[in-house]
Amino acid sequence: MDRMEEACGVFGMFAPGQNLAQLTIFGLYALQHRGQESAGIAVSDGENVYVEKGMGLVSEVFPDLEKLGIGAGLAAIGHVRYPTSGLGRVENAQPLLVSYRYGSMAVAHNGNLVNAEELRLRLEKEGSIFQTTTDSELVTHLIARFGYKNLESSLKGVLPYLHGAYAFVFLTEKSLVGVRDPLGIRPLSVGQLNGSYILASESCAFDTIGAEMIRDVNPGEMVVINEEGLQSVQLLPSSRTALCIFEFIYFARPDSNINGRNIHLVRKELGRNLARENPAEADIVTGVPDSSLSAAAGFAEEAGLPYEMGLIKNRYIGRTFIQPRQEIRNLGVQLKLNPVQKVVDGKRVVVVDDSIVRGTTSRKLVSTFFRAGAIEVHLRISSPPVLSPCYYGIDTPTYEELIGSKRDIEEIRKEIGATSLGYLSKEGMLSAACLPEESLCMACFTGEYPV
Amino acid sequence: MDRMEEACGVFGMFAPGQNLAQLTIFGLYALQHRGQESAGIAVSDGENVYVEKGMGLVSEVFPDLEKLGIGAGLAAIGHVRYPTSGLGRVENAQPLLVSYRYGSMAVAHNGNLVNAEELRLRLEKEGSIFQTTTDSELVTHLIARFGYKNLESSLKGVLPYLHGAYAFVFLTEKSLVGVRDPLGIRPLSVGQLNGSYILASESCAFDTIGAEMIRDVNPGEMVVINEEGLQSVQLLPSSRTALCIFEFIYFARPDSNINGRNIHLVRKELGRNLARENPAEADIVTGVPDSSLSAAAGFAEEAGLPYEMGLIKNRYIGRTFIQPRQEIRNLGVQLKLNPVQKVVDGKRVVVVDDSIVRGTTSRKLVSTFFRAGAIEVHLRISSPPVLSPCYYGIDTPTYEELIGSKRDIEEIRKEIGATSLGYLSKEGMLSAACLPEESLCMACFTGEYPV
Amino acid sequence: MDRMEEACGVFGMFAPGQNLAQLTIFGLYALQHRGQESAGIAVSDGENVYVEKGMGLVSEVFPDLEKLGIGAGLAAIGHVRYPTSGLGRVENAQPLLVSYRYGSMAVAHNGNLVNAEELRLRLEKEGSIFQTTTDSELVTHLIARFGYKNLESSLKGVLPYLHGAYAFVFLTEKSLVGVRDPLGIRPLSVGQLNGSYILASESCAFDTIGAEMIRDVNPGEMVVINEEGLQSVQLLPSSRTALCIFEFIYFARPDSNINGRNIHLVRKELGRNLARENPAEADIVTGVPDSSLSAAAGFAEEAGLPYEMGLIKNRYIGRTFIQPRQEIRNLGVQLKLNPVQKVVDGKRVVVVDDSIVRGTTSRKLVSTFFRAGAIEVHLRISSPPVLSPCYYGIDTPTYEELIGSKRDIEEIRKEIGATSLGYLSKEGMLSAACLPEESLCMACFTGEYPV
Amino acid sequence: MDRMEEACGVFGMFAPGQNLAQLTIFGLYALQHRGQESAGIAVSDGENVYVEKGMGLVSEVFPDLEKLGIGAGLAAIGHVRYPTSGLGRVENAQPLLVSYRYGSMAVAHNGNLVNAEELRLRLEKEGSIFQTTTDSELVTHLIARFGYKNLESSLKGVLPYLHGAYAFVFLTEKSLVGVRDPLGIRPLSVGQLNGSYILASESCAFDTIGAEMIRDVNPGEMVVINEEGLQSVQLLPSSRTALCIFEFIYFARPDSNINGRNIHLVRKELGRNLARENPAEADIVTGVPDSSLSAAAGFAEEAGLPYEMGLIKNRYIGRTFIQPRQEIRNLGVQLKLNPVQKVVDGKRVVVVDDSIVRGTTSRKLVSTFFRAGAIEVHLRISSPPVLSPCYYGIDTPTYEELIGSKRDIEEIRKEIGATSLGYLSKEGMLSAACLPEESLCMACFTGEYPV
Repeated sequence: MDRMEEACGVFGMFAPGQNLAQLTIFGLYALQHRGQESAGIAVSDGENVYVEKGMGLVSEVFPDLEKLGIGAGLAAIGHVRYPTSGLGRVENAQPLLVSYRYGSMAVAHNGNLVNAEELRLRLEKEGSIFQTTTDSELVTHLIARFGYKNLESSLKGVLPYLHGAYAFVFLTEKSLVGVRDPLGIRPLSVGQLNGSYILASESCAFDTIGAEMIRDVNPGEMVVINEEGLQSVQLLPSSRTALCIFEFIYFARPDSNINGRNIHLVRKELGRNLARENPAEADIVTGVPDSSLSAAAGFAEEAGLPYEMGLIKNRYIGRTFIQPRQEIRNLGVQLKLNPVQKVVDGKRVVVVDDSIVRGTTSRKLVSTFFRAGAIEVHLRISSPPVLSPCYYGIDTPTYEELIGSKRDIEEIRKEIGATSLGYLSKEGMLSAACLPEESLCMACFTGEYPV
Repeated sequence: MDRMEEACGVFGMFAPGQNLAQLTIFGLYALQHRGQESAGIAVSDGENVYVEKGMGLVSEVFPDLEKLGIGAGLAAIGHVRYPTSGLGRVENAQPLLVSYRYGSMAVAHNGNLVNAEELRLRLEKEGSIFQTTTDSELVTHLIARFGYKNLESSLKGVLPYLHGAYAFVFLTEKSLVGVRDPLGIRPLSVGQLNGSYILASESCAFDTIGAEMIRDVNPGEMVVINEEGLQSVQLLPSSRTALCIFEFIYFARPDSNINGRNIHLVRKELGRNLARENPAEADIVTGVPDSSLSAAAGFAEEAGLPYEMGLIKNRYIGRTFIQPRQEIRNLGVQLKLNPVQKVVDGKRVVVVDDSIVRGTTSRKLVSTFFRAGAIEVHLRISSPPVLSPCYYGIDTPTYEELIGSKRDIEEIRKEIGATSLGYLSKEGMLSAACLPEESLCMACFTGEYPV
Repeated sequence: MDRMEEACGVFGMFAPGQNLAQLTIFGLYALQHRGQESAGIAVSDGENVYVEKGMGLVSEVFPDLEKLGIGAGLAAIGHVRYPTSGLGRVENAQPLLVSYRYGSMAVAHNGNLVNAEELRLRLEKEGSIFQTTTDSELVTHLIARFGYKNLESSLKGVLPYLHGAYAFVFLTEKSLVGVRDPLGIRPLSVGQLNGSYILASESCAFDTIGAEMIRDVNPGEMVVINEEGLQSVQLLPSSRTALCIFEFIYFARPDSNINGRNIHLVRKELGRNLARENPAEADIVTGVPDSSLSAAAGFAEEAGLPYEMGLIKNRYIGRTFIQPRQEIRNLGVQLKLNPVQKVVDGKRVVVVDDSIVRGTTSRKLVSTFFRAGAIEVHLRISSPPVLSPCYYGIDTPTYEELIGSKRDIEEIRKEIGATSLGYLSKEGMLSAACLPEESLCMACFTGEYPV
Repeated sequence: MDRMEEACGVFGMFAPGQNLAQLTIFGLYALQHRGQESAGIAVSDGENVYVEKGMGLVSEVFPDLEKLGIGAGLAAIGHVRYPTSGLGRVENAQPLLVSYRYGSMAVAHNGNLVNAEELRLRLEKEGSIFQTTTDSELVTHLIARFGYKNLESSLKGVLPYLHGAYAFVFLTEKSLVGVRDPLGIRPLSVGQLNGSYILASESCAFDTIGAEMIRDVNPGEMVVINEEGLQSVQLLPSSRTALCIFEFIYFARPDSNINGRNIHLVRKELGRNLARENPAEADIVTGVPDSSLSAAAGFAEEAGLPYEMGLIKNRYIGRTFIQPRQEIRNLGVQLKLNPVQKVVDGKRVVVVDDSIVRGTTSRKLVSTFFRAGAIEVHLRISSPPVLSPCYYGIDTPTYEELIGSKRDIEEIRKEIGATSLGYLSKEGMLSAACLPEESLCMACFTGEYPV
């Protein structure tokens, strides 16, 4: 995969008497783009907490909504996980459910603790055993060892030990708790439906179940939701925010809102700014489906060029499709993306994509357009060059593999074979997001890590 | 389903020594939008013909390309089938493979014979038995009874008995044959890859395997492909063409070409003409994914309005997803299509859709936009009102159920609840397709049936 | 497989208002030993006939009795099929359901028509097409061509054309019909439950659903069961019976009765006669599970020797278990049958088996006992040497492969490696079954074929 | 279920370079009768330990031996688990694999710790979390907290804390370890194959892979198997043995040996002693398949009565078969066990069974024989009355539910409806097993618990 890839999506809901298993699954359907490796839910009926999870898409793990082992309850959490290589074991599927001194606790996590290894070694020295390689298990160990009867009190003690990016949702027999790291690197929002509170990585999950978004969970904030309502505690001081900029560029669904701004509209603005900064003498503009279509439409509008479907994505080539052998591929089989010859033939084409990671996909993309008859291919990227890997839960290649880390733009253009290549500037990106630099994590573009 | 729905896609390839099973499956992946109920392939190794088929998507019927029972061969055909209610039996999956006096014959069909019942009764009177309810079985009976050793000769005798719309592909031990009805109602094209000939319902199947489109099979033409190459026989006289206009409007994939015209570009032109005929005082234009996006982009360009994603489709809600119960739906759960509130809130929105059949979907669509905050919803349809059912293989409701059959546009607008409603005129539609009226079947818009 | 293998089991029931789908499936569970390749049922609700079938065991084809597409009805038939090599296609699963001039007809068959090829060629010359390679399809063609409105009348015309062994059950919208060939080679019996009539290959199917056996269907008899009760017609003259002797020796379940005689008791008598004819100086007697346990118990009783479990069968090695590779087998892995060392070590062992076909299994068996410490292995076979292949639906090897066809007993003993070898005589076999020679088909032992 | 039910089977093998995954699976096939709920294996390649497990039979969890994710290695362990109600969660499937301070450790367990709850509470108080409800997880916590680098040293410290019945197999990166409780309640034996050592609950697992049994692991003994061979350490003093007597009566496979005695032969002797103690005036003797067939044969031989198959078990009614509804059962459907009417009709029948637990099954059994025509049913039990529940890992009902706990034999006979009822005496049982009372756990018969 030659993409920055999201690590996970989390969901939580406190709504006594509702069919929480089904509602949580619907929330996960809305968050499925954030992770397709495994899916799971945990539901509390007020007395016990139950978990159901497995490998695959939400629709594969929960094929029959009427046959769930668990149904109505008090509260529930859910999780979808992205397939990071090597760790795709069912044991790592979340939520993780443990029992400890004070009962049951389920937890789901989006993010990455940078000091996980260190914490794990310390716990192992003290005699802990580990059944998974997840940060979630680490956190449950710490909570259990802190030993307060009250999960909230334990979290107060545990959080200072966690360094990195995290958005956790916890479920106990009686309550739902959400926590976000003090820089707010990974997103987490609060929504409401008929008086019930909901937590989700993205606001599209609220829409899906008919709920409304209330606000983002603040960096360093813990929200505790139980029979008495929602209580907010600022667990850790937070001097700044450092939300992952890639949520705007690529991760989030176009219908989600972050910081009050709609993702589709931000991406369209990214495209407009890109057209202003890097115009092209061209005949048509086209985007790479699905993530770059908004930016391409923005580019086209700003440039006054026709916006066309130059590339069609086959919706039926699934996650588990195994590429045919070389002998078949040599025939020119292109199953997933098909260039539209009649659209691009004889044309000077602006192709808008969201980012270049290794560059291999971009090279194929450019040659695909040339083979389809394009006379010029102007590649425009709606973000700056990716210079540095991410340590906060996003699957990125090493410095060596990042095409942007050691080459200037002309060198990249040559490697990729485009007629021209233009990246959006940092400023153009920030102005589209309407956010000051100090409120975002842009480490992959700048090498300056907020933690 | 409140849509006109396509009945099938067919594919055929004659390429000795190639991995025909895999290539045929790739072709079916490209045609999957034409039918999702069942999929199947038949392969000849020169001596025998083998078939493999089943219910579900291509990826479900053929989960492991390396584990196909059948592989390299001389020629192959494939079929995807649309789920028409009540007949979704595995027995009806195609291709149908039969043995008869002169060996084996497999057949796949796209279309509908209007005199099927009459032919079946006549055959039954003569002692025939039927194991399926498909036209394909009828045709094999007729061929076997005609009794020429040569399939082509038998087809010459059989075709005059068939009335209706059809695009057949036949496979015998030694040859691949394609036939199209004398009005050319259903599409069928010829492609080429390294000297090998291919038949497919749509040109996107050629692109997918790296082949090039050569031409459409002519109405009434039979093409016979074997070791000696491609031989064309005009089996039936054809005074006119009557290609189904809905291929342009909705059925075909945007990257396919029909009559030398690209579908995406035709649809964009439909949108432009629609904007000229039915302009709207509005702030933004949005389309219903995926089929109306091209027309919406065309409308936006012509109207000089921003083209926005006002509606997001969840890619993970599959064909087999079972709707949640009413109690859950009442909460406002909307899994498949989500309006983007930030995009439409406070806006006068033009919504472009391809057609209105029963009207129930359009009513929901309009109210969805109003609930998301639109202050005006101007529904624009990129085709004329559907007045009459189709008898040529498209799943349409009866006259009673067609909202357009007995109401004028203002009545329809009221029922649907839109601020304004505009259909594209017949002339606007024809000019976008660049085709004269007499070369198309527009029976569903006009009630004038070509057969 | 080094066994004579049964081809099929059939079942039918006429019981308006009962849950016929479930009852038929229970009947098939009882007949499962007669065929494990595919299973299927057809049910009539008085208006239509529905079919459900698939590859695998009854429990695999019908995993959820509550989720059957078809339920209560008027009448039903069912079928289990044995996996004969090369033809294991789902298309050949039965019952076969066809529609023809006079409605629907489902049919299930146990047996083999010796003139099938000839009938098929004749039908093909007259323009028939074939979708399966089953005798059932042949028969439905003949019935449809005979053209009487009444199935019974058609059968009267069709039966004289059929040569070979057959037990057919037919289902129409309104009736259940059973037919047995004029020599009665394959079994078919009539049972009754609360006034409802049932047909089954073996009486154990009656027991399973709480029904009682009434009688065997006579050779050449047709029984028609409908709202008016059971009507018997002697369709074909029958001068003698020629029931397959292997039903007694190996095919039938020990709790079934044929010709009024219980199979377990007949087999025990086979063992007793075997002990009388071929005694052995030995310490213990053991049988090959499961088919030879009755005969072994009889041998032990007659010989006054202890009856022991010398060989244990692993119940969890299923039909689809794939043998491990040679490198693993070389380690001495023996998954399916395990000799009990403590039982046989240092002993002179009589091993009773039902038959020797190719001899390969027997050779392995004997060496297994020697490796487990037996000092002498006296192999005793509860039937005579198999000399000739079967043409009536039993899967047998060719003359060349039959170890008994060209060797005398001493030669066979040497090849197999047994200390001594004794077969039961034809007379001993007949006296155990209490039947005269002229009422049985013993072609595989004598080479004299009754048809 | 109205049976005493076994809890588990364990297997382990140290054989560098062998296909340990496959061999372990074969071992589990042989132990499948000890548990059908879940199956799993863990394999070490010398550097890492991998686990693969799931719900269902061995054949369901490992359907394709060629497609195992793990193959050749250094050592492996395996486990099959019995379905105890309520805890059938996949999380509880074994082996359990954990990582801790000194690497990886996998463990599989047969038995039950009577102080598990107490140990768990103590660990929770010290901050431990639990993801399963298994004793195996408890033990890994204790080992990790003991904190010796060497597993063997840690076990020395941990074992004194464990009270109850256990046979553990452990796997680390470099070694295989087996431990048995100081009373030897649950069985565990050592076998050898080409110089490699194997551990298994029953000797039939050795036979299956071609290995030889060497000896039982002694009560309180730990065997450590690694590159240097097998090392034995008597970890806990053991004054006596208390092997579960039910291994002889019912649990173990007839081809297994315990304490050097073959199970089939012991059971036959149980039957002989039963006939001596409780003779019956009868015509035939029959056993309940499969567990009571050996005892029935012994009874028949001693009594000089014919041994018959009076009851046939349907091999195709699987573990997951769901009983039909009452309305169907009322028809007399008897799927699993079918009495053989011709065998028992008009006869005085001795029915031999291994034990009576609740009595409900026995009542049905007796009435089944009477319905099939038996004129007298003499029920003979090859063990004494079950008076007390088991606390060492066997699923037994409470005192209240045990028919033997508060009734004398005549009362039980009346409840069950038998003509006569006879249990084997404790002395008769011990003499058959050739073991002194003080070497066995007979708590369920005597109420005297050895721990």
